[in-house]
Amino acid sequence: MTMSVWDELSQRITDLDTLSSIGGLLGWDQQVMMPSGSAGGRAQQREFIGRLYHEQATSTRLGELIEAVAALPHPTLEQQAAVRNLRRTYRRATCVPPKLASRMAQANASGVAAWVEAKKERQFRLFAESLQTNVDLARERAQAIDSSRHPYNVLLEDYDPGTTVEDLRRMFGALQEGLAEIRQQALARKGPSPFTEYCDPAKQLALHHDVMRAVGYDTTRGVLNESEHPFSCRVGSQDVRIATHVHAQDLLSGLAATMHELGHALYEQGLPEGQGGSAVYSATSTGMHESQSRLWENMIGRSRGFYQWLQPVFAQHFPDQAFDPENVYRSSNRITSGSIRIFAEEVSYNLHIILRFEIEVALLERRITVEEVPGEWARLSEQFLGVRPKDDAEGVLQDAHWAGGAFGYFPSYTLGNLYAASIFAQLRECYPDLDRHLEKGNFSIILNFLRERIHRQGHLFETPELLEKSVGHRDHVHDLLDYLRERYTTV
Amino acid sequence: MTMSVWDELSQRITDLDTLSSIGGLLGWDQQVMMPSGSAGGRAQQREFIGRLYHEQATSTRLGELIEAVAALPHPTLEQQAAVRNLRRTYRRATCVPPKLASRMAQANASGVAAWVEAKKERQFRLFAESLQTNVDLARERAQAIDSSRHPYNVLLEDYDPGTTVEDLRRMFGALQEGLAEIRQQALARKGPSPFTEYCDPAKQLALHHDVMRAVGYDTTRGVLNESEHPFSCRVGSQDVRIATHVHAQDLLSGLAATMHELGHALYEQGLPEGQGGSAVYSATSTGMHESQSRLWENMIGRSRGFYQWLQPVFAQHFPDQAFDPENVYRSSNRITSGSIRIFAEEVSYNLHIILRFEIEVALLERRITVEEVPGEWARLSEQFLGVRPKDDAEGVLQDAHWAGGAFGYFPSYTLGNLYAASIFAQLRECYPDLDRHLEKGNFSIILNFLRERIHRQGHLFETPELLEKSVGHRDHVHDLLDYLRERYTTV
Repeated sequence: MTMSVWDELSQRITDLDTLSSIGGLLGWDQQVMMPSGSAGGRAQQREFIGRLYHEQATSTRLGELIEAVAALPHPTLEQQAAVRNLRRTYRRATCVPPKLASRMAQANASGVAAWVEAKKERQFRLFAESLQTNVDLARERAQAIDSSRHPYNVLLEDYDPGTTVEDLRRMFGALQEGLAEIRQQALARKGPSPFTEYCDPAKQLALHHDVMRAVGYDTTRGVLNESEHPFSCRVGSQDVRIATHVHAQDLLSGLAATMHELGHALYEQGLPEGQGGSAVYSATSTGMHESQSRLWENMIGRSRGFYQWLQPVFAQHFPDQAFDPENVYRSSNRITSGSIRIFAEEVSYNLHIILRFEIEVALLERRITVEEVPGEWARLSEQFLGVRPKDDAEGVLQDAHWAGGAFGYFPSYTLGNLYAASIFAQLRECYPDLDRHLEKGNFSIILNFLRERIHRQGHLFETPELLEKSVGHRDHVHDLLDYLRERYTTV
Repeated sequence: MTMSVWDELSQRITDLDTLSSIGGLLGWDQQVMMPSGSAGGRAQQREFIGRLYHEQATSTRLGELIEAVAALPHPTLEQQAAVRNLRRTYRRATCVPPKLASRMAQANASGVAAWVEAKKERQFRLFAESLQTNVDLARERAQAIDSSRHPYNVLLEDYDPGTTVEDLRRMFGALQEGLAEIRQQALARKGPSPFTEYCDPAKQLALHHDVMRAVGYDTTRGVLNESEHPFSCRVGSQDVRIATHVHAQDLLSGLAATMHELGHALYEQGLPEGQGGSAVYSATSTGMHESQSRLWENMIGRSRGFYQWLQPVFAQHFPDQAFDPENVYRSSNRITSGSIRIFAEEVSYNLHIILRFEIEVALLERRITVEEVPGEWARLSEQFLGVRPKDDAEGVLQDAHWAGGAFGYFPSYTLGNLYAASIFAQLRECYPDLDRHLEKGNFSIILNFLRERIHRQGHLFETPELLEKSVGHRDHVHDLLDYLRERYTTV
């Protein structure tokens, strides 16, 4: 009995998925439990799994199978999706000459080392040469993959296939203006002081468990743990974990981290299992993944209704402490100031991203030189956020992405916010009394909406098409500005 | 530049070791953290890693390299050891026809299922057919590996290379008589009642941490965690973990579990890293591994000096509770009764093992039939332990080893006790004031002794030769009986 090409292709994808989930466990354990002395050994284990993955992901037979399935007379929707997704990833894995791949690996590693040093010394010039090398290699890689397209579009496909630099320019341009306006209005608004009561960390974790279960996280298929940096991780098709970080005097920041990772994890828990594995049933893009985390973290997790629901849950864990939902709502939806992205609230956050997008596109188009980056950064920061970074460490050196060669990643964050805003807007159209549902903790209507319209669709369609199918033809920029205006400028 | 055959062989062993350490993490995580719903996925991941390991461990090139290193004109000690160890494991991996291997895998899996059912129903007859199949397949496998030798000797090499059924008969015969005598004398002795005070489990774990650090466990290269069943696990060359289980009203049983696993883990932490990897630097045998756990658990961990040292440590964690070292010493070195191996103290424990050894050798030699096993078990149990099992669940069905096809494993437990006794006896000859050292918590002299004489030697020599080098030509049976006589018959 011979295996059909589709069966054989699926089997190979299953093997790749198994390797990838094993890599997931190696990564999870490294941050959650591994003893410090084992860092070298862990790197070797991950490198080993990575090498096996690369061998299997670039095998000649895999390429043949993809084309054989593409040539089937009546391909199913799943087969069409698998071919589209695999052609892209296979091409990206095989078109980069091994020498270039190895130069990139070295440059990215030494780029991170130079960045760490430069950030410590707060001097961009110590990182400039590495940045130049990373930009040049990213261009070279884009060229090797497809020399006929804009290099940024090629790189963008690592994260957000289906979106182009033209889409981003159009959306980000309109968004920037609207955000600046909201920011100005919101800054004028005064609100209560932030919630900074001491809350026992162990009890905070117990509270997070309650929230996760209420929201619909399946605890038989995941665990919550602690780590220095919050993250979520797929350790198996039935094992999607969350690591969070709690702060004794900042309950809301830890809760936001858990809600954010929960959004990612719910997406992964909601992906179906089926033939074709991750070639059919995986997240459609980094932006779509981010939309799930932002929706739960911000749209739901900082809403009035959510805080109202949270009050009695909070009281169970902290019976002696006060938690006024209205105050918490108003204080946690307030414009921040400063030049650091990760401390920014939703409005400024997107301006941070647009700033980075402008600069990385200009670098890849060679419209600006590496030496001009700090000046450009200061100029845009002043223009968008009204603040010039104090020094390079608070400016261009604040993020690690470029040091590791990740160009085209930043837009995903704002794409996530844009998509989340449209999903949320559609959700409110379906449930005009959404806030009442939130007050009652009736989160299942939200999760069911996401499950049905997004999670269960896997990667059958590219992000823009899936969004069109799931929330209709919506203007994401309009939806995001609307949402932010309501949150930040009305009481 | 061509690679030397030794370098190439070492590289392949390194890869096998990496796969095996990844398997270690998959196993560790499964028992310590994995959510219940992921059991199927984890089985798939482990099967995948197992398949890769088997492919690489049976590759033609590996066989060629072993023989090429064997043919080197002036092999080093490491090369000689690698050739000896690898020839054995390679032969065992390649000589079993795939069909037989797959029949065994199936029979062992259904054997375990039948055993679970039979144990629940307390009826041996529900397991008899599976046991017969497992015995037949074990014989068949032994035949395939080396038809010229006693099948039990072939199987024994899975666990204790360098030891034969003749060695075991000689040692176990002498041991059994001595143990019976000690048992009789010790039963007459009355002692204080066992230590059963309630001790907060979290504080017990903190106590275990203190003990581990005092003994010399390197916490930068391992972690302590909890699981249903205690075990230790190599997750990397610099990452050897311990999972223990504490009981609120039985502090000493949890502590014994930690000390036991600590002994295993200290051995693994003490193995050198070097060219040839595990082919040179791994434990010499299951028995030797067990000697390390038993030494720390029993010889050290139940000694008068240890309990004296423990008293102030205990008081720090449990300031309101009494801990009288002499009472604890006497109550924790007392003969137990009953027919269950895992609840037996050191004297009876070895009698349990000898009973199993007698029966499994008789089964493999076809001197008895499967149907005769329960009767033979009852007869030997009465003879050795003065008790007939109440039913099959408390008799032949109490252990899972045979259900999974592990014949030749049981002797390792008693070999471990025999080796530990000789190591302990030699240690006391080197340090006649050993008990004073223990009282002061001067455990480093013991760990250094083990590191130097055993751990650092890896698998350069087979167990009997290594013991001869490390503790001299000692009579293990005499040493074990001497030790047990002192512990159990004098006050």
